[in-house]
Amino acid sequence: MTDAKTTDAQPNEAESRERLSRRRMLGFSGASLLAGAAAGAGLDRMAAASTENEPATVAAIPFHGANQAGIATPVQDRLHFAAFDVITDDRAKVVQLLKDWTAAAAAMTQGHAVGEGAVSKVAVAPPDDTGEALGLPASRLTLTIGFGPTLFEKDGKDRFGIKAKRPAALVDLPHFPGDKLDPDRSGGDIAVQACADDPQVAVHAIRNLARIGFGVVSVRWSQLGFGKTSSTTPDAQTPRNLMGFKDGTENIAGTDTALLGKHVWATAADGAAWMAGGSYLVARRIRMHIETWDRTSLREQEEIIGRDKLEGAPIGRTKEREKVILAKMKPDAHVLLAHPQTNKGVRILRRGYSFTDGSDGLGRLDAGLFFIAFQRDPRTGFIPVQTSLATDALNEYIQHVGSGIYACPPGVKQGGYWGETLFT
Amino acid sequence: MTDAKTTDAQPNEAESRERLSRRRMLGFSGASLLAGAAAGAGLDRMAAASTENEPATVAAIPFHGANQAGIATPVQDRLHFAAFDVITDDRAKVVQLLKDWTAAAAAMTQGHAVGEGAVSKVAVAPPDDTGEALGLPASRLTLTIGFGPTLFEKDGKDRFGIKAKRPAALVDLPHFPGDKLDPDRSGGDIAVQACADDPQVAVHAIRNLARIGFGVVSVRWSQLGFGKTSSTTPDAQTPRNLMGFKDGTENIAGTDTALLGKHVWATAADGAAWMAGGSYLVARRIRMHIETWDRTSLREQEEIIGRDKLEGAPIGRTKEREKVILAKMKPDAHVLLAHPQTNKGVRILRRGYSFTDGSDGLGRLDAGLFFIAFQRDPRTGFIPVQTSLATDALNEYIQHVGSGIYACPPGVKQGGYWGETLFT
Repeated sequence: MTDAKTTDAQPNEAESRERLSRRRMLGFSGASLLAGAAAGAGLDRMAAASTENEPATVAAIPFHGANQAGIATPVQDRLHFAAFDVITDDRAKVVQLLKDWTAAAAAMTQGHAVGEGAVSKVAVAPPDDTGEALGLPASRLTLTIGFGPTLFEKDGKDRFGIKAKRPAALVDLPHFPGDKLDPDRSGGDIAVQACADDPQVAVHAIRNLARIGFGVVSVRWSQLGFGKTSSTTPDAQTPRNLMGFKDGTENIAGTDTALLGKHVWATAADGAAWMAGGSYLVARRIRMHIETWDRTSLREQEEIIGRDKLEGAPIGRTKEREKVILAKMKPDAHVLLAHPQTNKGVRILRRGYSFTDGSDGLGRLDAGLFFIAFQRDPRTGFIPVQTSLATDALNEYIQHVGSGIYACPPGVKQGGYWGETLFT
Repeated sequence: MTDAKTTDAQPNEAESRERLSRRRMLGFSGASLLAGAAAGAGLDRMAAASTENEPATVAAIPFHGANQAGIATPVQDRLHFAAFDVITDDRAKVVQLLKDWTAAAAAMTQGHAVGEGAVSKVAVAPPDDTGEALGLPASRLTLTIGFGPTLFEKDGKDRFGIKAKRPAALVDLPHFPGDKLDPDRSGGDIAVQACADDPQVAVHAIRNLARIGFGVVSVRWSQLGFGKTSSTTPDAQTPRNLMGFKDGTENIAGTDTALLGKHVWATAADGAAWMAGGSYLVARRIRMHIETWDRTSLREQEEIIGRDKLEGAPIGRTKEREKVILAKMKPDAHVLLAHPQTNKGVRILRRGYSFTDGSDGLGRLDAGLFFIAFQRDPRTGFIPVQTSLATDALNEYIQHVGSGIYACPPGVKQGGYWGETLFT
């Protein structure tokens, strides 16, 4: 697919040829030509961007590697997350889809269009790419895939011959106190996390994967996140969640290979050899009762969180990044209950996003945090932390309304595909 | 409110004082001091931004003026649109809310926090500002208010003594063929359009207005738009909608005062003197059946739209901005039916946004275009154009599922408030 796009693609239509040559005259630089950006009209998102003299390589995050991108990668500004149901029982079709998705993901993350692009070689055929990201740069797009428990076994059935490969770490999450999970916003056989600095690029990516999957998968639910609430870049300004507080101050840094190795990346020795270099994703749609929160006093807000609002300093400290003093916090403070010191040293890598999905019919915004965490093993990661949070003072102001857990396989080698270690 | 914020605001708490002085040491520039950015801890969004050496004036669009900002203003990247129901019958409360909203809007659009900011002077009180935009610049935020027909008269009742002032142009929109309007995504007594280059800033603005309105208004519905689909800046790259086509090529330019005067701004002579300098906003939530569209051939897509996909050139032309040749188009092409030549010269200013609101429970993304148009009179603007579009070939791929019409009053003078000409 990639080869076809960058080498022998020739528009068949006279009109397309005319457009192509016109576009060639528009000022493609040598750099973009080298990058294959001018191989064909509409074949490449960067082609349009390059007319604005943007280097073809700007803001593209490598797709191939030992780990999937989108986990340790510095958190992008926007999210489109989708969970799919597999609607076939044919293993070969699933494998083919994963291969097709991989080719598309490799292209889109590098700022290229899917397949032969938004302008078909043959005008009587639908274009391979839906086109709304034409002219937009890669925008640090990452696509990260994960496999839910139901892909391995559903209603007792081993649909795809991979039941025995289900990792012990890919547990069904227990019911936590206060959970009010909507099944239509939970679960899914396969999940894809699209992160980018431009939401149009993230939405385009999910939409094109859904399109490629027609007949094999169906969108079960999806979630747009308009603003990141965690950073994995320690020296960057910590983003704020919709409670107005800085979030993720003590998050695992994407550059801290020691911590990543200890808490994020699974190894063969963990039990599932095919997951070596992978990680487990837990997603939780957390509705915030922001109207109630907004009527709470500053002092109470700060006591509930365990940090001050403006600076983000732990209670009893003056700077955000000073060490927390748990003894200074109320016993039900959120930071205290979530802290590694309270949870046997557990660390999880958070990549959450704020959402606002219209209103709830009761005069309130349907807003909150779409929590995403990666960890080496949810049994020693999210689950004990969330259990510890059962007495969190914050629970008065939040409710978990959606949930998912997915095994994210290792990164893709050149020529490989998403999930290759699982299906071979 | 603004005075208190920029002059005599002093945190009462010792801790706040300490933070304030520490923040002062963090490197506030002379420019930001002049802008009042350092007047108090948490009182001002720009205070945090200025520590990154951003000029305090960057990317703030003036709030006061003859017309409301957010109409002729160059279209920002992101949208949060909210429609409110008024839940009181007390006219004085409505007027007071409009005054309070005006003060908050004047502050937020200039990059300031609401009232005394995200950190209360008195820690036992809730902060005036919810805080999630602390540290973010103004981001070209505009807030534009409009009044729906039901504010003037609801169920035959003149709730606020303004029934006689309802402009003839503020009609109830007729039913259009194919409409499938959801009442929970339609109408509303008051609408506010928040546009900004940062969605967190737009969401923060709507959320804080909703908060200020507690007990007086209730959110009826709201819509996030992740990407603009129209430009009012003629030399800028035309954005693409979710059909992958450039949209709004022939839109009214925000700089074209002659066209704005003729087609966008209402005058006293139009019938409602209080609307002089105002405009009428029509919003339509248009669901796109993108899955069907994506399986349509390129040729058919281009014939339906009446332009080519890559360049956006009208059928029979080679460049986007060349004059359309309607005779070259199919009689049911979208561009032909919407074109001023087909509609007695009608022009409307479009400011639409793409949306993706999860999935629809049937395996499809709930995605489309949140259409927003401003015009001097919907009776000669949106209504005849939409009537003309009854035979649009595009109708097979779209459905109007939400609708609203609002009279947007003129701009606010210094010391004035939103709707002052209506309520005095």
